[in-house]
Amino acid sequence: MFGNDVKVVDCTIRDGGLINKWKFSEDMVRKVFLALDAAGVDYMELGYRASEKLFPPKEFGPWRFTKDETVRNIVGDTKSEMKLGVMVDIDRVEEDDLKPASESPLHFIRVATYLKDINKAIQLANHINEKGYESFINIMAISTVNSFDLEEGLRKIENETKVTAVNVVDSNGSLYPRDIENLVSLYRKELKTKKTGFHAHNNLQLGFANSIQALHSGSKFCDATVNGIGRGAGNCPLELLIACLKNPKYHLEPVLRVIQDIFVDLQKNIEWGYIIPYMITGVLNEHPRVAIALRESDRKDCYADFYRQLTSPECYENR
Amino acid sequence: MFGNDVKVVDCTIRDGGLINKWKFSEDMVRKVFLALDAAGVDYMELGYRASEKLFPPKEFGPWRFTKDETVRNIVGDTKSEMKLGVMVDIDRVEEDDLKPASESPLHFIRVATYLKDINKAIQLANHINEKGYESFINIMAISTVNSFDLEEGLRKIENETKVTAVNVVDSNGSLYPRDIENLVSLYRKELKTKKTGFHAHNNLQLGFANSIQALHSGSKFCDATVNGIGRGAGNCPLELLIACLKNPKYHLEPVLRVIQDIFVDLQKNIEWGYIIPYMITGVLNEHPRVAIALRESDRKDCYADFYRQLTSPECYENR
Repeated sequence: MFGNDVKVVDCTIRDGGLINKWKFSEDMVRKVFLALDAAGVDYMELGYRASEKLFPPKEFGPWRFTKDETVRNIVGDTKSEMKLGVMVDIDRVEEDDLKPASESPLHFIRVATYLKDINKAIQLANHINEKGYESFINIMAISTVNSFDLEEGLRKIENETKVTAVNVVDSNGSLYPRDIENLVSLYRKELKTKKTGFHAHNNLQLGFANSIQALHSGSKFCDATVNGIGRGAGNCPLELLIACLKNPKYHLEPVLRVIQDIFVDLQKNIEWGYIIPYMITGVLNEHPRVAIALRESDRKDCYADFYRQLTSPECYENR
Repeated sequence: MFGNDVKVVDCTIRDGGLINKWKFSEDMVRKVFLALDAAGVDYMELGYRASEKLFPPKEFGPWRFTKDETVRNIVGDTKSEMKLGVMVDIDRVEEDDLKPASESPLHFIRVATYLKDINKAIQLANHINEKGYESFINIMAISTVNSFDLEEGLRKIENETKVTAVNVVDSNGSLYPRDIENLVSLYRKELKTKKTGFHAHNNLQLGFANSIQALHSGSKFCDATVNGIGRGAGNCPLELLIACLKNPKYHLEPVLRVIQDIFVDLQKNIEWGYIIPYMITGVLNEHPRVAIALRESDRKDCYADFYRQLTSPECYENR
């Protein structure tokens, strides 16, 4: 059993958008928003905020930019206690892209960063706080960093920011519950005044299990997506997370209903979930991009050759 | 990391057969046998052994009966160190159905039982040992028994049988890693001279995670199936189990190859895996049969109503 102080962060549209360039209709996102609100979800990440100077708007759907006016369309006149936010990437957002929080329908902004860019992430997080938003830092690809560098980075965040939480992000989907226990414990040790969160990927069918482990190890924020939607193998399914938390504030039925109404058909058109090429990149602690490329080719089900190729001496040399 | 004394038990054909009444061709089973042998799997459970007097042979495929001559066809002249076996259900097999082990291609027989039938299971396991086979007992539906009865049952098995191991079977797929830790610890405490095994179901996407937990808690046998095939939500995927064990005797590539050659097409015709109605029965600790019935109806994707029905006061009263 978990305490009722755990916060559920839905990133269905933001992470799901990585599959289809964020080309979800406003109608669809409005339905997801209403379902999450009825389910009692605490935080909803609606997309990325990015500069239109850097991403040609014609190539991407609205949730690559997630403008304030688009968010207002989604909320309409619905009264909701759910906090709304976006993710920003280092170097892909400009100062002008963020109005003061008092003028925005957004409550929080999460900074996604690699550990090597932690100083830029700290700068951006502080800018976000100055504008009046709640801030988070997500350290991506955590399975590829060494713990000495990580400790140093966490200490900098602890000392130099006002973020609410720092999230462990298993970008490659290659971590086991014991790894999560170790990582969350290290975060807890270094972050005296900040909370810890967790963002899973499901390459090894461990997205939900690792999320449970993160909570057992002291994480207070946990990411999830409806039906586990997300790039590649997808994420921790929101329906499983809500069911296991057993907090009376959460309701499973609205999530089940939005899955049957929207996600069953959606999955016929865009692909996510436990599929062997993503399992292979997870096992090898590789970014899923090579598996995504395989799935888009005419050799999409040639699993054995794909594995042989990734484990060949030539491939190792090219790393 | 796990020790190299862990044994992998494949039950692809036996558990997968629950979906299609064991109507797998000998050619298909031979290919699976060769793949498992090349992968280094320790035990292969080929099907159920059952009396033809009780199950009309016309309704079922060969792996409902798994006759010795059928097994000989599968092995052919292949030299293999993999142990072959079958599962038997209490009251569904007759003494004549088992020849002495010296006359059979089978090495092991597993007795599936509910805890209430443990005395019958002990009798059958002893009969199996007397015939010269290695024996196991699988206690099914372990999420529905109380631990006092379970301790008593385990003590009886400890004192009255020569089984190699007793398996924790999460029939409803409703257990979390912490439950597995508790159950395997209880088994370890009561079974001084027997080993412990684990058989997962994947209703909550925890099949693999619970298997890892079982091994961390001291299980020495672990069931798995190719691509997680199995009734309802399926089982712990063999490819994930082999990859995580990191024992050089196991080889992943033959498993990946048989998935691409056989299981990709198979899954277009028969259904298994993480599907919401199975998640719902898992969350509610129900047998998956109501979810299987839903999936065979024209309301197969009406998840919210299904959940509402199973959690209604009327439904609770009928339990």
